[in-house]
Amino acid sequence: MSNSPDLDSLVQQMAKLPGLGPRSARRAVLQLVKKKESALLPMISALQRVADTMATCEACGNIDTQNPCHICTDPRRDARTLCVVEDVADLWALERGGHWRGRYHVLGGKLSALDGVRPEDLSIEPLVRRVVQAKTASPPLEEVVLAVGATLEGQTTAHYVADQLADLGVILSTLAHGVPVGGELDYLDEGTLTLALRARRPIE
Amino acid sequence: MSNSPDLDSLVQQMAKLPGLGPRSARRAVLQLVKKKESALLPMISALQRVADTMATCEACGNIDTQNPCHICTDPRRDARTLCVVEDVADLWALERGGHWRGRYHVLGGKLSALDGVRPEDLSIEPLVRRVVQAKTASPPLEEVVLAVGATLEGQTTAHYVADQLADLGVILSTLAHGVPVGGELDYLDEGTLTLALRARRPIE
Repeated sequence: MSNSPDLDSLVQQMAKLPGLGPRSARRAVLQLVKKKESALLPMISALQRVADTMATCEACGNIDTQNPCHICTDPRRDARTLCVVEDVADLWALERGGHWRGRYHVLGGKLSALDGVRPEDLSIEPLVRRVVQAKTASPPLEEVVLAVGATLEGQTTAHYVADQLADLGVILSTLAHGVPVGGELDYLDEGTLTLALRARRPIE
Repeated sequence: MSNSPDLDSLVQQMAKLPGLGPRSARRAVLQLVKKKESALLPMISALQRVADTMATCEACGNIDTQNPCHICTDPRRDARTLCVVEDVADLWALERGGHWRGRYHVLGGKLSALDGVRPEDLSIEPLVRRVVQAKTASPPLEEVVLAVGATLEGQTTAHYVADQLADLGVILSTLAHGVPVGGELDYLDEGTLTLALRARRPIE
Protein backbone atom coordinates (compact mmCIF):
# COMPACT_ATOMS: atom_id res chain seq x y z
CA MET A 1 0.00 0.00 0.00
CA SER A 2 2.61 2.52 1.08
CA ASN A 3 5.56 0.08 1.17
CA SER A 4 6.27 1.15 4.75
CA PRO A 5 5.18 -1.07 7.64
CA ASP A 6 5.74 1.90 9.97
CA LEU A 7 3.25 4.00 8.04
CA ASP A 8 0.73 1.15 7.76
CA SER A 9 0.95 0.48 11.48
CA LEU A 10 0.34 4.17 12.24
CA VAL A 11 -2.68 4.20 9.89
CA GLN A 12 -4.07 1.14 11.66
CA GLN A 13 -3.71 2.77 15.06
CA MET A 14 -5.26 6.01 13.86
CA ALA A 15 -8.17 4.07 12.38
CA LYS A 16 -9.05 2.77 15.86
CA LEU A 17 -9.83 6.29 17.09
CA PRO A 18 -13.53 7.16 17.28
CA GLY A 19 -14.60 9.15 14.23
CA LEU A 20 -11.82 7.86 11.96
CA GLY A 21 -12.04 4.90 9.60
CA PRO A 22 -9.22 3.36 7.52
CA ARG A 23 -9.66 5.91 4.73
CA SER A 24 -9.75 9.05 6.87
CA ALA A 25 -6.92 7.66 9.04
CA ARG A 26 -4.80 7.39 5.90
CA ARG A 27 -5.61 10.99 4.95
CA ALA A 28 -4.79 12.15 8.49
CA VAL A 29 -1.46 10.31 8.53
CA LEU A 30 -0.59 11.66 5.09
CA GLN A 31 -1.23 15.21 6.23
CA LEU A 32 0.93 14.66 9.32
CA VAL A 33 3.80 13.22 7.28
CA LYS A 34 3.62 16.00 4.69
CA LYS A 35 3.83 18.64 7.41
CA LYS A 36 6.49 17.03 9.55
CA GLU A 37 7.80 20.18 11.24
CA SER A 38 4.47 21.96 11.67
CA ALA A 39 2.16 19.03 12.46
CA LEU A 40 3.84 15.67 13.06
CA LEU A 41 6.53 16.70 15.57
CA PRO A 42 4.20 19.03 17.57
CA MET A 43 1.63 16.21 17.67
CA ILE A 44 4.22 13.82 19.11
CA SER A 45 5.26 16.23 21.84
CA ALA A 46 1.63 17.09 22.70
CA LEU A 47 0.83 13.39 23.07
CA GLN A 48 3.99 12.83 25.09
CA ARG A 49 3.12 15.68 27.48
CA VAL A 50 -0.36 14.26 27.99
CA ALA A 51 1.06 10.77 28.58
CA ASP A 52 3.46 12.22 31.14
CA THR A 53 0.98 14.34 33.06
CA MET A 54 -2.51 12.81 32.94
CA ALA A 55 -3.85 10.41 35.54
CA THR A 56 -7.22 8.98 36.56
CA CYS A 57 -8.61 10.42 39.80
CA GLU A 58 -8.98 7.62 42.35
CA ALA A 59 -11.90 9.38 44.03
CA CYS A 60 -14.20 10.16 41.10
CA GLY A 61 -12.71 8.64 37.93
CA ASN A 62 -12.05 11.99 36.23
CA ILE A 63 -8.92 12.32 34.09
CA ASP A 64 -6.71 15.18 35.23
CA THR A 65 -3.16 16.32 35.81
CA GLN A 66 -3.51 15.57 39.50
CA ASN A 67 -4.87 12.67 41.59
CA PRO A 68 -7.24 13.35 43.36
CA CYS A 69 -8.41 15.65 40.57
CA HIS A 70 -8.87 19.43 40.86
CA ILE A 71 -12.66 19.05 41.26
CA CYS A 72 -12.40 16.58 44.14
CA THR A 73 -9.86 18.78 45.94
CA ASP A 74 -11.60 22.12 45.25
CA PRO A 75 -13.03 23.33 48.62
CA ARG A 76 -15.49 25.64 46.79
CA ARG A 77 -17.21 22.61 45.29
CA ASP A 78 -20.43 21.69 47.05
CA ALA A 79 -19.81 18.38 48.86
CA ARG A 80 -23.55 17.97 49.49
CA THR A 81 -24.32 17.09 45.86
CA LEU A 82 -22.86 14.36 43.67
CA CYS A 83 -23.43 13.98 39.94
CA VAL A 84 -23.09 10.43 38.55
CA VAL A 85 -22.08 10.30 34.87
CA GLU A 86 -21.32 7.46 32.47
CA ASP A 87 -18.08 8.77 31.11
CA VAL A 88 -15.36 11.39 31.55
CA ALA A 89 -16.63 13.02 28.33
CA ASP A 90 -19.98 13.63 30.05
CA LEU A 91 -18.20 15.18 33.04
CA TRP A 92 -16.36 17.54 30.70
CA ALA A 93 -19.60 18.40 28.90
CA LEU A 94 -21.25 19.34 32.22
CA GLU A 95 -18.15 21.36 33.21
CA ARG A 96 -18.33 23.24 29.91
CA GLY A 97 -21.90 24.12 30.88
CA GLY A 98 -20.34 25.61 34.00
CA HIS A 99 -23.41 25.42 36.25
CA TRP A 100 -22.84 22.28 38.28
CA ARG A 101 -21.11 23.22 41.53
CA GLY A 102 -21.13 19.78 43.16
CA ARG A 103 -18.76 16.87 42.68
CA TYR A 104 -18.82 13.98 40.20
CA HIS A 105 -18.62 10.23 40.06
CA VAL A 106 -17.69 8.55 36.75
CA LEU A 107 -19.20 5.09 36.27
CA GLY A 108 -16.91 4.26 33.37
CA GLY A 109 -19.67 3.05 31.03
CA LYS A 110 -23.22 1.78 31.10
CA LEU A 111 -24.77 -1.61 31.71
CA SER A 112 -25.20 -3.50 28.45
CA ALA A 113 -26.23 -7.11 27.99
CA LEU A 114 -25.21 -6.82 24.32
CA ASP A 115 -21.66 -5.66 25.03
CA GLY A 116 -21.36 -7.82 28.14
CA VAL A 117 -20.97 -4.89 30.56
CA ARG A 118 -22.05 -6.08 34.03
CA PRO A 119 -22.47 -4.05 37.24
CA GLU A 120 -19.07 -5.24 38.52
CA ASP A 121 -17.42 -3.78 35.40
CA LEU A 122 -18.58 -0.28 36.36
CA SER A 123 -17.58 1.89 39.29
CA ILE A 124 -20.86 1.20 41.14
CA GLU A 125 -19.53 -0.48 44.31
CA PRO A 126 -17.03 2.38 44.84
CA LEU A 127 -19.95 4.80 44.36
CA VAL A 128 -21.99 3.07 47.08
CA ARG A 129 -19.00 3.12 49.45
CA ARG A 130 -18.40 6.78 48.62
CA VAL A 131 -22.03 7.72 49.30
CA VAL A 132 -22.03 5.82 52.62
CA GLN A 133 -18.85 7.63 53.64
CA ALA A 134 -20.00 11.06 52.43
CA LYS A 135 -23.25 10.73 54.40
CA THR A 136 -21.27 11.01 57.65
CA ALA A 137 -18.90 13.73 56.39
CA SER A 138 -19.29 17.40 57.20
CA PRO A 139 -21.20 18.78 55.35
CA PRO A 140 -23.00 15.47 54.64
CA LEU A 141 -23.98 14.34 51.14
CA GLU A 142 -27.65 15.11 50.50
CA GLU A 143 -28.37 14.48 46.83
CA VAL A 144 -27.15 12.21 44.05
CA VAL A 145 -28.04 13.24 40.47
CA LEU A 146 -28.03 10.34 38.01
CA ALA A 147 -26.96 12.22 34.86
CA VAL A 148 -26.91 9.30 32.43
CA GLY A 149 -28.00 9.22 28.80
CA ALA A 150 -31.68 8.96 27.87
CA THR A 151 -30.98 5.69 26.08
CA LEU A 152 -32.23 2.22 26.96
CA GLU A 153 -28.83 1.26 28.38
CA GLY A 154 -28.42 4.57 30.20
CA GLN A 155 -31.82 4.20 31.85
CA THR A 156 -31.12 0.57 32.79
CA THR A 157 -27.91 1.76 34.44
CA ALA A 158 -29.75 4.57 36.23
CA HIS A 159 -32.34 2.11 37.60
CA TYR A 160 -29.66 -0.28 38.80
CA VAL A 161 -27.62 2.48 40.47
CA ALA A 162 -30.79 3.96 42.03
CA ASP A 163 -31.60 0.53 43.50
CA GLN A 164 -28.15 0.30 45.07
CA LEU A 165 -28.45 3.78 46.60
CA ALA A 166 -32.13 3.52 47.59
CA ASP A 167 -31.70 2.79 51.30
CA LEU A 168 -28.80 5.15 51.96
CA GLY A 169 -30.94 8.16 52.88
CA VAL A 170 -29.91 10.51 50.04
CA ILE A 171 -32.21 12.24 47.58
CA LEU A 172 -31.93 10.63 44.13
CA SER A 173 -32.71 12.75 41.07
CA THR A 174 -32.27 12.62 37.32
CA LEU A 175 -31.89 15.14 34.49
CA ALA A 176 -35.01 16.77 33.08
CA HIS A 177 -36.23 15.65 29.66
CA GLY A 178 -37.45 18.22 27.21
CA VAL A 179 -36.83 20.25 24.09
CA PRO A 180 -33.09 20.89 23.63
CA VAL A 181 -32.06 24.54 23.43
CA GLY A 182 -32.22 25.59 19.78
CA GLY A 183 -34.29 22.50 18.92
CA GLU A 184 -37.01 22.70 16.29
CA LEU A 185 -40.19 20.94 17.40
CA ASP A 186 -40.85 19.20 14.10
CA TYR A 187 -37.40 17.55 14.15
CA LEU A 188 -37.95 16.11 17.65
CA ASP A 189 -39.19 12.59 18.28
CA GLU A 190 -42.63 12.05 19.81
CA GLY A 191 -41.17 10.62 23.03
CA THR A 192 -39.27 13.82 23.81
CA LEU A 193 -42.27 15.99 22.89
CA THR A 194 -44.58 13.99 25.15
CA LEU A 195 -42.13 14.26 28.07
CA ALA A 196 -41.62 17.98 27.44
CA LEU A 197 -45.38 18.52 27.40
CA ARG A 198 -45.92 16.56 30.61
CA ALA A 199 -43.17 18.50 32.38
CA ARG A 200 -44.45 21.88 31.11
CA ARG A 201 -44.00 24.81 33.49
CA PRO A 202 -45.77 28.15 33.98
CA ILE A 203 -44.17 31.16 32.30
CA GLU A 204 -42.60 33.37 34.95
CA MET B 1 -12.90 22.64 29.79
CA SER B 2 -10.57 19.95 31.04
CA ASN B 3 -8.45 22.15 33.31
CA SER B 4 -5.33 20.93 31.52
CA PRO B 5 -3.66 23.13 28.89
CA ASP B 6 -1.73 20.06 27.71
CA LEU B 7 -4.95 18.22 27.00
CA ASP B 8 -6.58 21.23 25.34
CA SER B 9 -3.55 21.76 23.13
CA LEU B 10 -3.63 18.10 22.06
CA VAL B 11 -7.35 18.35 21.26
CA GLN B 12 -6.69 21.46 19.16
CA GLN B 13 -3.98 19.69 17.18
CA MET B 14 -6.11 16.60 16.67
CA ALA B 15 -8.98 18.78 15.47
CA LYS B 16 -6.80 20.02 12.59
CA LEU B 17 -6.59 16.52 11.10
CA PRO B 18 -8.88 15.92 8.12
CA GLY B 19 -12.05 14.10 9.19
CA LEU B 20 -11.90 15.27 12.82
CA GLY B 21 -13.64 18.32 14.29
CA PRO B 22 -13.31 19.72 17.82
CA ARG B 23 -15.89 17.30 19.22
CA SER B 24 -14.54 14.12 17.67
CA ALA B 25 -10.98 15.23 18.46
CA ARG B 26 -11.98 15.45 22.12
CA ARG B 27 -13.47 11.96 21.99
CA ALA B 28 -10.34 10.62 20.29
CA VAL B 29 -8.04 12.23 22.87
CA LEU B 30 -10.20 10.94 25.70
CA GLN B 31 -9.99 7.41 24.36
CA LEU B 32 -6.21 7.70 24.03
CA VAL B 33 -5.82 9.00 27.59
CA LYS B 34 -8.10 6.33 29.04
CA LYS B 35 -6.08 3.58 27.35
CA LYS B 36 -2.62 4.93 28.04
CA GLU B 37 -0.72 1.64 27.86
CA SER B 38 -2.65 0.07 24.99
CA ALA B 39 -3.33 3.14 22.81
CA LEU B 40 -1.54 6.36 23.80
CA LEU B 41 2.01 5.06 24.20
CA PRO B 42 1.86 2.84 21.06
CA MET B 43 0.50 5.84 19.12
CA ILE B 44 3.42 7.99 20.25
CA SER B 45 6.01 5.42 19.21
CA ALA B 46 4.27 4.79 15.87
CA LEU B 47 4.31 8.54 15.13
CA GLN B 48 7.93 8.78 16.24
CA ARG B 49 8.97 5.90 13.97
CA VAL B 50 7.23 7.57 11.01
CA ALA B 51 8.85 10.92 11.84
CA ASP B 52 12.24 9.23 11.96
CA THR B 53 11.96 7.21 8.77
CA MET B 54 9.73 9.00 6.24
CA ALA B 55 11.04 11.40 3.61
CA THR B 56 9.78 13.01 0.41
CA CYS B 57 11.27 11.55 -2.77
CA GLU B 58 13.18 14.28 -4.62
CA ALA B 59 12.47 12.71 -7.99
CA CYS B 60 8.71 12.17 -7.90
CA GLY B 61 7.34 13.70 -4.66
CA ASN B 62 6.21 10.37 -3.17
CA ILE B 63 6.56 9.90 0.60
CA ASP B 64 8.63 6.85 1.45
CA THR B 65 11.26 5.45 3.78
CA GLN B 66 13.93 6.07 1.14
CA ASN B 67 14.87 8.97 -1.14
CA PRO B 68 14.66 8.42 -4.11
CA CYS B 69 11.60 6.30 -3.30
CA HIS B 70 11.23 2.57 -3.95
CA ILE B 71 9.14 3.19 -7.08
CA CYS B 72 11.71 5.53 -8.67
CA THR B 73 14.55 3.10 -7.96
CA ASP B 74 12.68 -0.10 -8.95
CA PRO B 75 14.24 -1.30 -12.25
CA ARG B 76 11.12 -3.36 -13.02
CA ARG B 77 9.07 -0.17 -13.30
CA ASP B 78 8.44 0.92 -16.86
CA ALA B 79 10.46 4.11 -17.42
CA ARG B 80 8.57 4.77 -20.70
CA THR B 81 5.36 5.81 -18.92
CA LEU B 82 4.82 8.50 -16.30
CA CYS B 83 1.63 9.06 -14.32
CA VAL B 84 1.05 12.63 -13.06
CA VAL B 85 -1.11 12.81 -9.89
CA GLU B 86 -2.26 15.67 -7.68
CA ASP B 87 -1.32 14.16 -4.37
CA VAL B 88 0.55 11.34 -2.65
CA ALA B 89 -2.84 9.92 -1.61
CA ASP B 90 -3.71 9.49 -5.30
CA LEU B 91 -0.40 7.73 -5.90
CA TRP B 92 -1.17 5.32 -3.07
CA ALA B 93 -4.68 4.76 -4.41
CA LEU B 94 -3.26 3.82 -7.83
CA GLU B 95 -0.67 1.57 -6.18
CA ARG B 96 -3.43 -0.19 -4.24
CA GLY B 97 -5.06 -0.83 -7.63
CA GLY B 98 -1.78 -2.52 -8.49
CA HIS B 99 -2.01 -2.22 -12.29
CA TRP B 100 0.15 0.80 -13.07
CA ARG B 101 3.66 -0.39 -13.89
CA GLY B 102 5.16 3.00 -14.83
CA ARG B 103 6.50 5.74 -12.59
CA TYR B 104 4.78 8.72 -10.95
CA HIS B 105 5.07 12.46 -10.58
CA VAL B 106 3.26 14.18 -7.69
CA LEU B 107 2.17 17.77 -8.42
CA GLY B 108 1.46 18.51 -4.76
CA GLY B 109 -1.99 19.99 -5.33
CA LYS B 110 -4.13 21.52 -8.06
CA LEU B 111 -4.41 25.00 -9.52
CA SER B 112 -7.04 27.01 -7.68
CA ALA B 113 -7.81 30.71 -8.05
CA LEU B 114 -9.98 30.45 -4.93
CA ASP B 115 -7.24 29.02 -2.70
CA GLY B 116 -4.52 31.05 -4.42
CA VAL B 117 -2.62 28.02 -5.77
CA ARG B 118 -0.56 29.15 -8.79
CA PRO B 119 1.47 27.06 -11.26
CA GLU B 120 4.71 27.94 -9.45
CA ASP B 121 3.27 26.48 -6.22
CA LEU B 122 3.02 23.05 -7.83
CA SER B 123 5.76 20.72 -9.02
CA ILE B 124 5.11 21.57 -12.70
CA GLU B 125 8.49 23.03 -13.66
CA PRO B 126 10.31 19.99 -12.19
CA LEU B 127 7.89 17.81 -14.20
CA VAL B 128 8.79 19.59 -17.47
CA ARG B 129 12.51 19.23 -16.70
CA ARG B 130 11.99 15.57 -15.82
CA VAL B 131 10.11 14.87 -19.07
CA VAL B 132 12.80 16.64 -21.16
CA GLN B 133 15.49 14.58 -19.44
CA ALA B 134 13.56 11.30 -19.63
CA LYS B 135 13.02 11.77 -23.39
CA THR B 136 16.74 11.23 -23.99
CA ALA B 137 17.11 8.40 -21.45
CA SER B 138 17.22 4.75 -22.39
CA PRO B 139 14.50 3.60 -22.71
CA PRO B 140 13.02 7.01 -23.55
CA LEU B 141 9.82 8.33 -21.98
CA GLU B 142 6.91 7.85 -24.38
CA GLU B 143 3.68 8.67 -22.56
CA VAL B 144 2.51 10.95 -19.75
CA VAL B 145 -0.86 10.10 -18.16
CA LEU B 146 -2.53 13.07 -16.47
CA ALA B 147 -4.37 11.23 -13.68
CA VAL B 148 -5.99 14.23 -12.01
CA GLY B 149 -9.48 14.50 -10.50
CA ALA B 150 -12.53 15.07 -12.70
CA THR B 151 -13.21 18.34 -10.89
CA LEU B 152 -13.08 21.87 -12.30
CA GLU B 153 -9.75 22.52 -10.59
CA GLY B 154 -8.35 19.13 -11.54
CA GLN B 155 -9.23 19.69 -15.21
CA THR B 156 -7.79 23.23 -15.14
CA THR B 157 -4.57 21.76 -13.79
CA ALA B 158 -4.59 19.03 -16.45
CA HIS B 159 -5.00 21.59 -19.24
CA TYR B 160 -2.20 23.76 -17.89
CA VAL B 161 0.17 20.81 -17.49
CA ALA B 162 -0.77 19.50 -20.96
CA ASP B 163 0.08 22.93 -22.42
CA GLN B 164 3.51 22.85 -20.79
CA LEU B 165 4.24 19.36 -22.11
CA ALA B 166 2.65 19.84 -25.54
CA ASP B 167 5.82 20.39 -27.58
CA LEU B 168 8.03 17.82 -25.88
CA GLY B 169 7.14 14.93 -28.20
CA VAL B 170 5.46 12.62 -25.68
CA ILE B 171 1.95 11.15 -25.89
CA LEU B 172 -0.38 12.85 -23.40
CA SER B 173 -3.36 10.91 -22.10
CA THR B 174 -5.93 11.14 -19.36
CA LEU B 175 -8.04 8.70 -17.32
CA ALA B 176 -11.25 7.34 -18.87
CA HIS B 177 -14.56 8.68 -17.58
CA GLY B 178 -17.42 6.28 -17.00
CA VAL B 179 -19.55 4.30 -14.63
CA PRO B 180 -17.55 3.37 -11.49
CA VAL B 181 -17.33 -0.33 -10.69
CA GLY B 182 -20.29 -1.24 -8.50
CA GLY B 183 -22.03 2.01 -9.43
CA GLU B 184 -25.80 2.12 -9.82
CA LEU B 185 -26.87 4.08 -12.89
CA ASP B 186 -29.67 6.00 -11.15
CA TYR B 187 -27.29 7.35 -8.52
CA LEU B 188 -24.89 8.72 -11.16
CA ASP B 189 -24.93 12.31 -12.36
CA GLU B 190 -25.93 13.05 -15.96
CA GLY B 191 -22.42 14.26 -16.88
CA THR B 192 -20.85 10.91 -16.05
CA LEU B 193 -23.64 9.02 -17.81
CA THR B 194 -23.25 11.11 -20.96
CA LEU B 195 -19.47 10.57 -21.00
CA ALA B 196 -19.90 6.85 -20.33
CA LEU B 197 -22.40 6.58 -23.19
CA ARG B 198 -20.15 8.50 -25.62
CA ALA B 199 -17.19 6.28 -24.72
CA ARG B 200 -19.20 3.03 -25.02
CA ARG B 201 -17.34 0.02 -26.33
CA PRO B 202 -18.34 -3.17 -28.15
CA ILE B 203 -18.83 -6.26 -25.98
CA GLU B 204 -16.00 -8.70 -26.59
